Amino acid sequence: MPAATAAAATDPWRLVRHGHRKATRAQEESLFALANGSLGVRGGIEEGHSPSQGSFLSGAWERTPIEYHERFPGFARSTDTRVPVADGTRIGLRLGDTAVQLDRGEWLEFTRSLDLRHGCMQRSLRWRSADGATLEIRAERLVALDTPGLLAIRYCVRSIDYSGPITLESAIDTARDAVGQGEDPRIGTRIDGGLRNAGAAADQGQAWVRQHTSHSDIQVLCGQRHLLREGELAFATANAGPHGVVQTYAGTLQPGRQLVLEKYVAYAWTMPAEHAVPDGLPGQVEHILQQAAAAGYATLAQQQSLELERFWAATDLAICGDAETELALRLNLFHVYQSSPRDSGGSIAAKGLTGEGYEGHYFWDAEAFMLPAMVGLAPELARHMLAYRYRTLDRARLHAREMNHARGALYPWRTISGGECSAYFPSGSAQYHINAAIAWAIRLYVDASGDDAFLQAMGAEMLFETARIWLDVGHFNARRGGAFCIHEVTGPDEYSALVDNNHYTNRMAQRHLRDAAAVARRLAAENPAAYAALSARIGLHAEECAQWQRAADAMYLPVDARLGIFPQDDGFLDKPRLPPQNIDAGKQPLLLRMHPLTIYRHQVCKQADALLALVLAGDDVDREAKQRNLAYYEPVTVHDSTLSASTFAILAAEVGQLEKASGYFHETLRVDLDDLHGNAGHGLHMAAMAGSWLALSWGFGGLRVIDGVPSLAPSLPPEWTGYRFGLRWRDSQLRVEVDADGVCYSLTAGTALDFRHAGVPQHLRAGQSLRLPHTVAATDWPALPHAFKAVIFDLDGVIADTAVVHHAAWKQLAAEIGIPFDDAIGDRLKGVDRAASLDIVLENAGRRYTAAEKLALADRKNALYRDRIEHFGPADMLPGARRAIESARRAGLRIGLASASRNASLLLQRMQIADLFDHVVDAGTISQAKPHPEIFLAAARGLGVQPSECLGVEDAAAGVTSIHAAGMAAIGIGHADALAEADVVLPSVAELDIGRFLKR
Amino acid sequence: MPAATAAAATDPWRLVRHGHRKATRAQEESLFALANGSLGVRGGIEEGHSPSQGSFLSGAWERTPIEYHERFPGFARSTDTRVPVADGTRIGLRLGDTAVQLDRGEWLEFTRSLDLRHGCMQRSLRWRSADGATLEIRAERLVALDTPGLLAIRYCVRSIDYSGPITLESAIDTARDAVGQGEDPRIGTRIDGGLRNAGAAADQGQAWVRQHTSHSDIQVLCGQRHLLREGELAFATANAGPHGVVQTYAGTLQPGRQLVLEKYVAYAWTMPAEHAVPDGLPGQVEHILQQAAAAGYATLAQQQSLELERFWAATDLAICGDAETELALRLNLFHVYQSSPRDSGGSIAAKGLTGEGYEGHYFWDAEAFMLPAMVGLAPELARHMLAYRYRTLDRARLHAREMNHARGALYPWRTISGGECSAYFPSGSAQYHINAAIAWAIRLYVDASGDDAFLQAMGAEMLFETARIWLDVGHFNARRGGAFCIHEVTGPDEYSALVDNNHYTNRMAQRHLRDAAAVARRLAAENPAAYAALSARIGLHAEECAQWQRAADAMYLPVDARLGIFPQDDGFLDKPRLPPQNIDAGKQPLLLRMHPLTIYRHQVCKQADALLALVLAGDDVDREAKQRNLAYYEPVTVHDSTLSASTFAILAAEVGQLEKASGYFHETLRVDLDDLHGNAGHGLHMAAMAGSWLALSWGFGGLRVIDGVPSLAPSLPPEWTGYRFGLRWRDSQLRVEVDADGVCYSLTAGTALDFRHAGVPQHLRAGQSLRLPHTVAATDWPALPHAFKAVIFDLDGVIADTAVVHHAAWKQLAAEIGIPFDDAIGDRLKGVDRAASLDIVLENAGRRYTAAEKLALADRKNALYRDRIEHFGPADMLPGARRAIESARRAGLRIGLASASRNASLLLQRMQIADLFDHVVDAGTISQAKPHPEIFLAAARGLGVQPSECLGVEDAAAGVTSIHAAGMAAIGIGHADALAEADVVLPSVAELDIGRFLKR
Repeated sequence: MPAATAAAATDPWRLVRHGHRKATRAQEESLFALANGSLGVRGGIEEGHSPSQGSFLSGAWERTPIEYHERFPGFARSTDTRVPVADGTRIGLRLGDTAVQLDRGEWLEFTRSLDLRHGCMQRSLRWRSADGATLEIRAERLVALDTPGLLAIRYCVRSIDYSGPITLESAIDTARDAVGQGEDPRIGTRIDGGLRNAGAAADQGQAWVRQHTSHSDIQVLCGQRHLLREGELAFATANAGPHGVVQTYAGTLQPGRQLVLEKYVAYAWTMPAEHAVPDGLPGQVEHILQQAAAAGYATLAQQQSLELERFWAATDLAICGDAETELALRLNLFHVYQSSPRDSGGSIAAKGLTGEGYEGHYFWDAEAFMLPAMVGLAPELARHMLAYRYRTLDRARLHAREMNHARGALYPWRTISGGECSAYFPSGSAQYHINAAIAWAIRLYVDASGDDAFLQAMGAEMLFETARIWLDVGHFNARRGGAFCIHEVTGPDEYSALVDNNHYTNRMAQRHLRDAAAVARRLAAENPAAYAALSARIGLHAEECAQWQRAADAMYLPVDARLGIFPQDDGFLDKPRLPPQNIDAGKQPLLLRMHPLTIYRHQVCKQADALLALVLAGDDVDREAKQRNLAYYEPVTVHDSTLSASTFAILAAEVGQLEKASGYFHETLRVDLDDLHGNAGHGLHMAAMAGSWLALSWGFGGLRVIDGVPSLAPSLPPEWTGYRFGLRWRDSQLRVEVDADGVCYSLTAGTALDFRHAGVPQHLRAGQSLRLPHTVAATDWPALPHAFKAVIFDLDGVIADTAVVHHAAWKQLAAEIGIPFDDAIGDRLKGVDRAASLDIVLENAGRRYTAAEKLALADRKNALYRDRIEHFGPADMLPGARRAIESARRAGLRIGLASASRNASLLLQRMQIADLFDHVVDAGTISQAKPHPEIFLAAARGLGVQPSECLGVEDAAAGVTSIHAAGMAAIGIGHADALAEADVVLPSVAELDIGRFLKR
Repeated sequence: MPAATAAAATDPWRLVRHGHRKATRAQEESLFALANGSLGVRGGIEEGHSPSQGSFLSGAWERTPIEYHERFPGFARSTDTRVPVADGTRIGLRLGDTAVQLDRGEWLEFTRSLDLRHGCMQRSLRWRSADGATLEIRAERLVALDTPGLLAIRYCVRSIDYSGPITLESAIDTARDAVGQGEDPRIGTRIDGGLRNAGAAADQGQAWVRQHTSHSDIQVLCGQRHLLREGELAFATANAGPHGVVQTYAGTLQPGRQLVLEKYVAYAWTMPAEHAVPDGLPGQVEHILQQAAAAGYATLAQQQSLELERFWAATDLAICGDAETELALRLNLFHVYQSSPRDSGGSIAAKGLTGEGYEGHYFWDAEAFMLPAMVGLAPELARHMLAYRYRTLDRARLHAREMNHARGALYPWRTISGGECSAYFPSGSAQYHINAAIAWAIRLYVDASGDDAFLQAMGAEMLFETARIWLDVGHFNARRGGAFCIHEVTGPDEYSALVDNNHYTNRMAQRHLRDAAAVARRLAAENPAAYAALSARIGLHAEECAQWQRAADAMYLPVDARLGIFPQDDGFLDKPRLPPQNIDAGKQPLLLRMHPLTIYRHQVCKQADALLALVLAGDDVDREAKQRNLAYYEPVTVHDSTLSASTFAILAAEVGQLEKASGYFHETLRVDLDDLHGNAGHGLHMAAMAGSWLALSWGFGGLRVIDGVPSLAPSLPPEWTGYRFGLRWRDSQLRVEVDADGVCYSLTAGTALDFRHAGVPQHLRAGQSLRLPHTVAATDWPALPHAFKAVIFDLDGVIADTAVVHHAAWKQLAAEIGIPFDDAIGDRLKGVDRAASLDIVLENAGRRYTAAEKLALADRKNALYRDRIEHFGPADMLPGARRAIESARRAGLRIGLASASRNASLLLQRMQIADLFDHVVDAGTISQAKPHPEIFLAAARGLGVQPSECLGVEDAAAGVTSIHAAGMAAIGIGHADALAEADVVLPSVAELDIGRFLKR
């Protein structure tokens, strides 16, 4: 009985599907799956007989030896495969003596819905038997987010026109085997062993089955219990057989009457190492069942809603006028959240707990895609993911030895229990970038959570041990000027393999090595004892950390001279492209159609590779380069991986190609909803689902974490009138609302948050809301009519933010004389001269100060200020300032500085940009302050150009006036309202690329 | 009873081993194996129980599915494994009721010998039982070279001190299974199935077993028959059981008396396709047994000797004063010859028919190593090898489709029946160079045999179909100036995999493409009908052949600018070398100690790769470049493959490093004799064995086939006083004898042979012997004291051999006027002027010619000559001439021509070398002929240098005189005796590298 999906107004909190089609059955079982990080239950209905229905435990997997016809040292010996466990969803029906077989009757109406807010699945079926008996069956189920092994079902059968006896056969079914691999290496595998029945019992009071894996030595116990809630229903029989256990309940039905049964299914299982004490399992199962039955379904459902409340508060999602998209985003986040671990026992599998695809393995996408979303929404789950990696660190060390590395740890490409499970090493262990992804995730998690305890207890050790491997796979290559080159690895794009200098790998390794060196330095300085203990334990010497830094600094990241892009690897650009007819041959991915050699031989990408590097670690790459890379790689990428679209969406948004970004956003958003890759039936694509939130927040929202600070740069895609998303950052919850007029930031939790908007530091306090302009989209850059020969920068607020230095100096002065000082006072000092500032600082003093004292204090403050300036470094520049100045150099312009600060030259030197300037006006020679044009005219003279050939760059309205008065064009940096006079206003200097003005 | 090998004088025709050691048992079974191309029988003794003893049929193999945990399209589905068949060597003994168990008694004396001249194995054992009975057992066996399925044994047991009953239990044993793979991927593999017993019968008159493979559907029938030759021996019992059949013969022994039994074992087997008619087998077996028994052992042994006679005549081997080496060479050739196919059913397996290593597969070394030896010694066997490839051409086409090539044929990397059996494609199907090796072998075979029928019937089709693949794996790369680049292949060095522009592959593909294009042109011209038919059959268009030529001409073969070597591949030189401690870690090859990624990541070669290309197709590479490549690659090569040493030997000899060459020669020579790689027990290394002959003939002998002509350049390694080898070439048998004085060429069969010595064409007739000087070794280059600025070449005899043009013109003239003309007449014309030549030509004329007629004829001849000159091309230059001239250009010298020929400028243009000359003396301006210095002085003037700054190059004594008279140094090209005046004499212009003189 196919039925169309109803066209009713979409409820953005509820996924609803009407009708029943065999073709989409497996996909819908995936979409309607419920999970809690430990237990996953697919969305098949209780009285159905779907062969693809199944339940999984993250801890229940079998170990199978890997056969190789030719085996070489270090090849993975065995694989771990998550296997379906006993399925507790089954409730069969009997009318009189006749078993209800849904396929033999008529489906009058069937609806399934996933209630995202409350974390449960509901469904209703109105069905008429071949004999003409009509029933309405409603059921709701949940997998308890607060109880690892609990499934609860409320099952209600109502008669429309049937009178007579009815039997409910509630079963735990163990008949299902793991799926076979067939011709698709993405699904599963041959399994040697699997779960075998190891006991079962059923009577009125109990019903359980015990299962045991053959090789991994894991025991699973599954039991059930029922509450008969409504109608005349009584225990009838119980049976334990080779395919499971069943308890039957008999009653009678009349038209308009209904029977309600609550079914509780509990799982307990052993860890592989615990095989000596499996007999704790019955007690655990009994405990769960007792608690659940005592609470009852309604209470469990309430608890479930409460569990979800904080998560939905963190997501804080809205897509104005696009409920479909809002629902899809929420569905995706719900599934990632459900499949995330609640302890260190595991991570998020490629298909979560929703199916058997990829054998239930954990890959790098857990850290590179799922974790960033969870870091921003449920960081405690991200911590579990990393704790799992720490738990398997010893196994990663062993794997490194298997791969001939004398030191360090190499995480496996795919795994459950920590060992390498990849049978095809060219797209398995060769993907050394897994180490960098984990390191990247550690940094992100620590930045976002401030969880230094984690860093000290686990993170640092993982960072160091994984960093060591790079020095083994790379070397300082004398043939390339001593650059650090990394050989024979495979990047994220598995359509190239065993390549040299994969850009993604090199860039991520660079970041990894820098982070490891920085953490080592920081730990050594801040907690020398802990650092010494860790160093001793892993045999780490200072020279090794110095070598990490050197390798990072010398990392080989070439730019192709002709194309101006980062070659994906040393050989990539030399290969021919795949003939188009091979690409357009339908939906089937190349990997199912061609020998790997054929694919490797061509310039074709399965997914984003260099582009992903630019998203994850591309802070120092300018936007034009990003645009060139996107333009180059887009036509050679076939997106056969569902990981690809989100990266393209993010990068397209970053370079201002919002329509393109929208297209990719919808591809990652609807991978499973529309089954875009044809295999949602094997489970949902967790990375694509998480990727849809990344495409929203990182893409349209422009979110990045730069130097530990969350940085946003929102833009509005043309299809929406507005959108909103939330972000957890340390103790705060940030709300980001974007509409046609700009961005509004506010805190929905926490007291204050420092972040950046379009590169400009912002400080947001509870109760406050900050409305700022959009990032300027690349396509919106205004044209300036002149032929410029020089650009003249203001310093303070454009190149460096000395306001923070003044602030710090005032703060220290206040501390020295014992006067309270806070950020609110600090804010009041901005743009105020020294004497007036001192008066403000002294407002809170307990006594009056004499003029002489004041002068001394002002001098002291200035000394403090200069002292800090002395310690200025490149890191004190405003983000993107160096790049903005260099963009003028690249454009062939002369460069001047027009700053009234007498410390200007010192500052330039300290920031190591003095050599970028052709002329710095000596503030001592200037008699009239801005807005007088004197200083800009002096700069033009010094540069040897006419004022009309100059562009001035200023952050203050007075500065803009000064520029115009000098007869120059003005670029304002800051709020458009405040700089209305400027010819162009950019929200931050990071947005400034002089070349853009000259191109048009 | 271990016993030392006797130190008696070595018989160079007989391998003898004394004593019996468990450690070398398997190795010796391999060394003493006998075979005939179809049947191989290892050298275990009749009454032994060695687990590694075995018999093989080239046609008996099992098919096993290959398991992949992750399988991709095009991966080989199954492998064929040659499996041990019923072993017919078994003869057990019983003294009274006690079975003779050799291990329980004392081995008083044991000797095994392989008689190479007669093709049989003899052994004797003097043995004392625990009861004190002493026996002497002598046995001889042969595997009949003229009867595919026949093994014959003459078995003699003699009593020293035993009196009493004795029973001989003659069995066919089927108990042995194939060996398992264990940890060494080089051995064998898991076999699914294997040979199963499918019937057996034994009585007085017959004894046979039938075996059947499970998957490949091959049936084997093995039967035996006995002749009781001496002593009182009578049939006793017969038995057929699950482990085979046995017939026993009872007799009595007295001290000094002996019993002699002749045992004949016959095999017949089906091809996989013949399974419908297996019942021909009993008749075949019966026929073989009848024939053998009728002949008797002695007659069979005589026939065996006759079969070998021609082969040994062709090898014509001698190593003066080094019988050990002579024996070793002969042993190696014997084994390759034995294991060579006698029909198109197969090729030569990596370990021949001597063991189970590499599953009995055929690889590329069959064509690149074994075939070149057989081409020179037994070309009919080489033809079988190529006919086998033709028989499997359709399967190679299918394999190409499996690898996504729409056209053409790709031969499998390893195979028995023609399908790809490699489970690890990076060192399997990725080795596309297999196609080039087969093409190379086709050319070599056709050149050597003149077998144009083969070329037309099979060779051309294979050449064309295999050539097509290169256009698919390569492309004209715009980023490298349109050079033809080949991506993602693996070269011979399997310690790098999936590389771009592997030098070996590119160079061999270039040759392949050129050969294919040339054969297409030739066939189209010479046999247009056959060419049209073939083209139609395989859909070949002229444009495709033109594309082959273009790809060959544009082939990417870069030289590293800094090192002056050919990089093994695009990434090779950039990788770090393997730390030395990893290389010196004992005999075990890296592939058994490290993950492939670790190996691939380093600059380390398993075996010769670029160097092999220089040996097989390096005619256009100068010797200095070869020396640089050898010097670079030697320290990065670990020789983990037994194929490596012979290539190093050949190249070291070519560049004159004779001691080094000797070292490598002994490594390839004694691989199995001394078990240098520790795995001779799994079978003998056919490529290394053939390689030892290549190291002799190609290495020390300097043998190459250049433009279809055999070219030699012998040198004498310091350790020998002389050596000799033979070479079959078309209808001739060339003897090459080298001693301290030089080289002596003679024909031991055939009437005449054209070849080259040190680049100089030679013509050798039966009965004649040609004594010539050695090639000048690189270390022997004399120093010339001058600082030269120019070099002046003579033309005729130095740059071009116009004598052959004159010869051809005279020949045509003779044909036009109907006068006989042969090479003998032609020889008489050399150095004779036109009029005198005409008189010689007219000697055989039937009538007298008038002076006017003679003048007209002389003019006609001159017109014919000039006409031919008009069609001169680069190919008409003397070999190496262009390179010699270019060596002067490279050395920065000015270059002149001093030729008396008035056609000189025309000739230079036609040969496309006019632009290499800075000045050509106009012969018309010269008044005095050589030996007058005028012409050389004119050349120096034209070049603007002093005569003392010039080197002159001449082939005639008069020319040398002329040079010296001009005050220049003289290089003579030709025989040292004739050019004694010259400062330096080189045997040919190919030896001339001007740079050498300037370096010292």
